[in-house]
Amino acid sequence: MREPIVLTPGPLGTSLATKTAMLSDWGSRDGAFNALTAKVCRQLVAIAGAQATHVCVPLQGSGTFAVEAAVGNLVPRGGKLLVLVNGAYGKRMARIAGAIGRRVAVYEVAEAVRHDPAEVAARLAADPTITHVGIVQCETSTGILNPVAAVARVVAQAGRRLIVDAMSAFGALPLDARDVPYDALIASSNQCLEGVPGVGFVIVRHESLMAAEGNSHSLALDLVDQYRYLRRTGQWRFTPPTHVVAAFASALDQYRDEGGQPARLARYAANCATLCAGLEDLGLRRFLAADFQAPVIVTWHAPDHPEYDFKRFYEAVRARGFLVHPGKLARAETFRVGCIGAIDRTEVRQAVAAIRAALLELGWLSELEIARPPAIRHAAA
Amino acid sequence: MREPIVLTPGPLGTSLATKTAMLSDWGSRDGAFNALTAKVCRQLVAIAGAQATHVCVPLQGSGTFAVEAAVGNLVPRGGKLLVLVNGAYGKRMARIAGAIGRRVAVYEVAEAVRHDPAEVAARLAADPTITHVGIVQCETSTGILNPVAAVARVVAQAGRRLIVDAMSAFGALPLDARDVPYDALIASSNQCLEGVPGVGFVIVRHESLMAAEGNSHSLALDLVDQYRYLRRTGQWRFTPPTHVVAAFASALDQYRDEGGQPARLARYAANCATLCAGLEDLGLRRFLAADFQAPVIVTWHAPDHPEYDFKRFYEAVRARGFLVHPGKLARAETFRVGCIGAIDRTEVRQAVAAIRAALLELGWLSELEIARPPAIRHAAA
Repeated sequence: MREPIVLTPGPLGTSLATKTAMLSDWGSRDGAFNALTAKVCRQLVAIAGAQATHVCVPLQGSGTFAVEAAVGNLVPRGGKLLVLVNGAYGKRMARIAGAIGRRVAVYEVAEAVRHDPAEVAARLAADPTITHVGIVQCETSTGILNPVAAVARVVAQAGRRLIVDAMSAFGALPLDARDVPYDALIASSNQCLEGVPGVGFVIVRHESLMAAEGNSHSLALDLVDQYRYLRRTGQWRFTPPTHVVAAFASALDQYRDEGGQPARLARYAANCATLCAGLEDLGLRRFLAADFQAPVIVTWHAPDHPEYDFKRFYEAVRARGFLVHPGKLARAETFRVGCIGAIDRTEVRQAVAAIRAALLELGWLSELEIARPPAIRHAAA
Repeated sequence: MREPIVLTPGPLGTSLATKTAMLSDWGSRDGAFNALTAKVCRQLVAIAGAQATHVCVPLQGSGTFAVEAAVGNLVPRGGKLLVLVNGAYGKRMARIAGAIGRRVAVYEVAEAVRHDPAEVAARLAADPTITHVGIVQCETSTGILNPVAAVARVVAQAGRRLIVDAMSAFGALPLDARDVPYDALIASSNQCLEGVPGVGFVIVRHESLMAAEGNSHSLALDLVDQYRYLRRTGQWRFTPPTHVVAAFASALDQYRDEGGQPARLARYAANCATLCAGLEDLGLRRFLAADFQAPVIVTWHAPDHPEYDFKRFYEAVRARGFLVHPGKLARAETFRVGCIGAIDRTEVRQAVAAIRAALLELGWLSELEIARPPAIRHAAA
């Protein structure tokens, strides 16, 4: 049996070219590998539109390691971080700041709601001790697209600094450093850039990084030290995941060849539209308003059936070749389906068919119900 | 042209079976991947002989991330770490302790010298504030094998706790938790276990880990949190490097099939003997006394020629298909050649031939000199 297709926003499905790039061993201090690292960093800064202002600091580990590194290096020990929270990843950034001993404030709104930039401005005006603001571009716990550009403007106007967790957005959803002022943007190898997991990176304003000397709470996560060493030697300070970096380099070449950010976004948008039309035809309802939905991952209300159980649903869909994602919401019973990775509408249509068949088998949806047009079902619900 | 063979102690050369294990994508919260993680952890604890006392906590990133996690979790904020230093990795452990705000003392000896357990006992008696002792089993900067068992005994007798950096030793050089008392042993996927880099792990005494709650200086490196989550859900807290873990699982199966630690050590010892005989026949001299030499990586004095330059030497050997390692010693001009990885005497003999040809081409060794028996050369020197 074939391995299942991963419909989660990291790790995700990668192309065979990306995976076969891992069939070589590299000396981590060899010139050929140094060239690979340099090329990856150059491409990432270019994707960010940040060549004139920012540098790329790659970091071993998951994306969360890079978020912690960004917060721990950029927010000084006497600083304070205001985190905009409307899901698990915003909460995680606030938790990180607390765990490493930085003062933290939280502006939290409900999971289906976006933050009001005017409220951010008011909170910054009311608390002059806030030095930095943290925001999640696409909050993966729902798939909501947060208003980074508008928030960045008010943060800049207030003379504060912005840290953007762009983990599941970078490379697909536009965010150009020439238009949107930020100090640091964090993402990883294994989301919209379609590499394999094991590397995160921070696109960081050069002058802010240079001013961050001595801030770090950690040696392994010290971005200044990592950058200086890389700059001086071309090498990572500590052993890099060489095979992961090689896969990432291949994935970035494929990204460029596909047409870069506009092409990636167009493919994901088509995947998302196909997914939404397909599951709505089954009578399933999206959690988010369409306006706020990033074409990255879609949160669905669980089928309205008393016996619904995510584990059984997961296994029934898995048996048909697809891995979906559990919901991550406190109050609503939901599940999530990703639109990203090395897939197009063909796989998404297959996934819709698999979900349909699973729900029919489980008896949580009847043929009769599916046959009814969605508008009538919604009116009845 | 074929890719060069990596003669460095991590990343190292891996088998094709290990690399092809990376040709699948995994859902990081899927049951199949959870089973892989559980199996890897079980095998690692068994290799350590620690099933009755310790647990395995895997961690994303390089081995240094895991060393920092072990120090940051096990040494309490009011504790003090005595680090035994005779090379770069001992120094690094001391640097980590300082960077994360733990008090640290250093017992340093020269790079070709081993620590005296009696002196460790004396220092522990003299400073009751020392709570933990850190030691590097095989100090990769020279290849010296440090006396972990003897030091462990005096540490236990003094009622203190031991942290062993076993990075380049674990799985090949014996260290059985049933005989040698330690709180934590740190190693990684990409050394004697012959996986690819991207994962470290800590074999940690269960009761010590449970007592470490609240010590961590970091969320990403919080071993207690990582362990509890893994225990509760079967999953990693944050995205694991799925492909690296899959390669590691394959490498561990190959390790078992080869015959485990005794077989791994025998192959590396044969590699090391072949390497030493071959390079000594060229008149090159080892840095360490044979008694202290671990069959992991061998440090060589540079050829005694006024024009010797490591970069030129490296490139000339590389052009013949092998990557050697620069020296890491403050005072002596040296280079290093690893004996570990998916190689046997065949590749080591080829490497010796490549080094010979490189030195002849560079004019740093003459045919006449090579023809002379080593004993005469040493007497003349």
